[in-house]
Amino acid sequence: MSRRTGQLHLNAFLKPPGEYLAAWRHPDTEAGAGVDIREVLSFARTAERAAFDAVFLADLVGVPFASEDVLSRVSVVNDSFEPTTLLAALAAGTSRIGLIATASTSYNEPYHVARTFASLDHISGGRAGWNVVTSLNDAEAQNFGLAAHLDHATRYDRAEEFHDVVTGLWDSFEDDAFRHDQSSGVYFDPAKLHALNHEGRHLKVAGPLNIARPPQGHPVVVQAGASEAGKNLASRVADVIFSGIRDLGRAQEFYAEIKERAAAHGRDPDHLKVLPALSVVTAPTESEARDKLARLTELLPPQVALADLSYWLGGFDLSASPLDGPLPELPVSNQSHTAQQQIYEDARRDNLTIRDLVRRVANDDRTITGTPQQIADHIEEWFHGRAADGFNVIFPYLPGTLDDFAELVIPELRRRGLFRTHYTGRTLRDHLGLPRPSRRS
Amino acid sequence: MSRRTGQLHLNAFLKPPGEYLAAWRHPDTEAGAGVDIREVLSFARTAERAAFDAVFLADLVGVPFASEDVLSRVSVVNDSFEPTTLLAALAAGTSRIGLIATASTSYNEPYHVARTFASLDHISGGRAGWNVVTSLNDAEAQNFGLAAHLDHATRYDRAEEFHDVVTGLWDSFEDDAFRHDQSSGVYFDPAKLHALNHEGRHLKVAGPLNIARPPQGHPVVVQAGASEAGKNLASRVADVIFSGIRDLGRAQEFYAEIKERAAAHGRDPDHLKVLPALSVVTAPTESEARDKLARLTELLPPQVALADLSYWLGGFDLSASPLDGPLPELPVSNQSHTAQQQIYEDARRDNLTIRDLVRRVANDDRTITGTPQQIADHIEEWFHGRAADGFNVIFPYLPGTLDDFAELVIPELRRRGLFRTHYTGRTLRDHLGLPRPSRRS
Repeated sequence: MSRRTGQLHLNAFLKPPGEYLAAWRHPDTEAGAGVDIREVLSFARTAERAAFDAVFLADLVGVPFASEDVLSRVSVVNDSFEPTTLLAALAAGTSRIGLIATASTSYNEPYHVARTFASLDHISGGRAGWNVVTSLNDAEAQNFGLAAHLDHATRYDRAEEFHDVVTGLWDSFEDDAFRHDQSSGVYFDPAKLHALNHEGRHLKVAGPLNIARPPQGHPVVVQAGASEAGKNLASRVADVIFSGIRDLGRAQEFYAEIKERAAAHGRDPDHLKVLPALSVVTAPTESEARDKLARLTELLPPQVALADLSYWLGGFDLSASPLDGPLPELPVSNQSHTAQQQIYEDARRDNLTIRDLVRRVANDDRTITGTPQQIADHIEEWFHGRAADGFNVIFPYLPGTLDDFAELVIPELRRRGLFRTHYTGRTLRDHLGLPRPSRRS
Repeated sequence: MSRRTGQLHLNAFLKPPGEYLAAWRHPDTEAGAGVDIREVLSFARTAERAAFDAVFLADLVGVPFASEDVLSRVSVVNDSFEPTTLLAALAAGTSRIGLIATASTSYNEPYHVARTFASLDHISGGRAGWNVVTSLNDAEAQNFGLAAHLDHATRYDRAEEFHDVVTGLWDSFEDDAFRHDQSSGVYFDPAKLHALNHEGRHLKVAGPLNIARPPQGHPVVVQAGASEAGKNLASRVADVIFSGIRDLGRAQEFYAEIKERAAAHGRDPDHLKVLPALSVVTAPTESEARDKLARLTELLPPQVALADLSYWLGGFDLSASPLDGPLPELPVSNQSHTAQQQIYEDARRDNLTIRDLVRRVANDDRTITGTPQQIADHIEEWFHGRAADGFNVIFPYLPGTLDDFAELVIPELRRRGLFRTHYTGRTLRDHLGLPRPSRRS
């Protein structure tokens, strides 16, 4: 494995009171942290002190669980801030860390999305990022006048067009359009304003956007697609690709493929950062770390765990299937192909029962547990092994696992020369080592 | 005129660098303040130190002027923050003042609007307000897939339904739904969650909203309609009605009518606050105040003034009509009926030329100029004369006219016992003397 020069990138995935569905039950969390701005701001400040590249906010525009019994036992999906207003508040309470929020291309208008993220970029002095997602829950669709979510091909087709409209709107004004010449009365040079006049398959948007070009030119674009359409979109337009792959070999293949695809689109492959998810529980000794995780996972009620597996299988109801039997053949779902396929492949390869899968999906199998040295070894192996340019670090419960990562793992990464000791740039593009895009002409 | 007990309410209408179209040319403004968060935050803090009820952000979702020559000479429409992200940032930088932002019912989804304002209410600890508007520019419509804006009846019909969906979504969870019981694992009581399942003429929204009921129950609802449909909507649902009436007699009639209409809807008329616009330029002496205004109005280029009149007349092109002749008969427009009608009535009654109207609409006739005592007399006359429960104070340029109002007029109002010396409540509803609404059952 050839060692890489350069440093890795780390985003802090903030889902208060934690990613784990039972995180809110942990005695060291504040159960209502999802709508407590002081709590969320303190998490962002911890991440900033540790010099993370960005905080990252996932999102759903609806409540995805069907059963009230399950729903009433989880926190995140029910009770969280809207991400762009949250980021604006975090922008005011931080000064250097990047701020990435999710906005769906399925049930939004590109004019609003372009404007909101341009605003965030101006408010934060160039620290905004947009995580471009397509929405895949019927519960979300039903909040926007539809009976079911869009099929996979349509939502990626719309996402491609939506992205191009948003970035086109960001380019409404040239960078030096604004003259602010009080004496002559010329506010901007009209030759440097460009309406978009977009008319496509899904969208018709005239423009121009009513705000100056963002400080970063374009806020950082993040994408997580792993299907053929998703990989194509990400390699064409994304600055950061977020993946859920947990196997090193597969992550290396994915990494190589994405970089090749970026090059095929005429891009510098180094300008598309591959950041897999990394869920971490750490402690000074391995047994302490395992105890920490065990104290968390014992809090998850079995019906919630089963519902979570159903959710990742496209909403298929598993309650009639024996827990110790194999996964039944499910109808092909319209939902996230990749997650579903990965579960099926795992189940077949390892001959897993539904009970095994429940544990794997909802519990601990996707969390790396160990000493700071072990975590750093894992990170280093993936980084130097060209499986990752860094990670979206996922915190099972907050602030505990974030504090541990910041206090234990980050110093170890620094000792190994893998991570910055302080910010050297001002914008999220600076942190990520990405160029400022020029206007499309 | 019977004197009223109680105090008046004042909102600070923030449109940096000022409401006046040429404000950015004033040597005491920062021309680019529209996207300078430090500037806007300093204005909000000035308003908070003066104990204004709220800051108020108007909005357009597009650029309304047709001619590039005109457009390139104005600031606000081209280069401003998106209002909800701005309010979230202001929430983080202030602690007591209310925060009202405009969101259109014409080109938004109610789920997003409900969620955004619920989030703002949680972020700010109960200080959010939603100014409910319908959009009336074709330039806005064209950013959302349409060729022209909706006709007046349709957009009000949609606004009524949109409002009811948003407030219904705010009521998704009962106030005491969240138990956060870590030991039993009950996050909320499922009997206290209510899906909306709305299916109406314009909208189909299942709900529930994925956030707890806002601290204020419902963020404060502001409406500015003055047509029959607008007055009906405002008197049925608004907490605050914003009007542009400048004549005392007409304002008194409007005030009486609105209070009667609120009563007819079964409401306490005191729970609908009537706040007309009040644009103020003040100085210790009358001649200084007049000079201040003159120094501002001389900055407005004539083509911008004429375009502004055209805009208020529904986009009708006046460039072929003689400036010293009367207003031609215009086709009936789909746009804001009220503004148009008022201009026509003024023109007929006072026998005004186009040049007169340009001056009246774009320049100084809507700004009250005088000493702090004269301004306070005007305010007192309207307040005790039951033409107003307070005002949306408009600042021709910022920070100058806001600083003057805070330093000169507010102390005079306090000496007269008309305005608070400090905040006594925590929420915007507290400041306005409005009850916290209970859930609709």
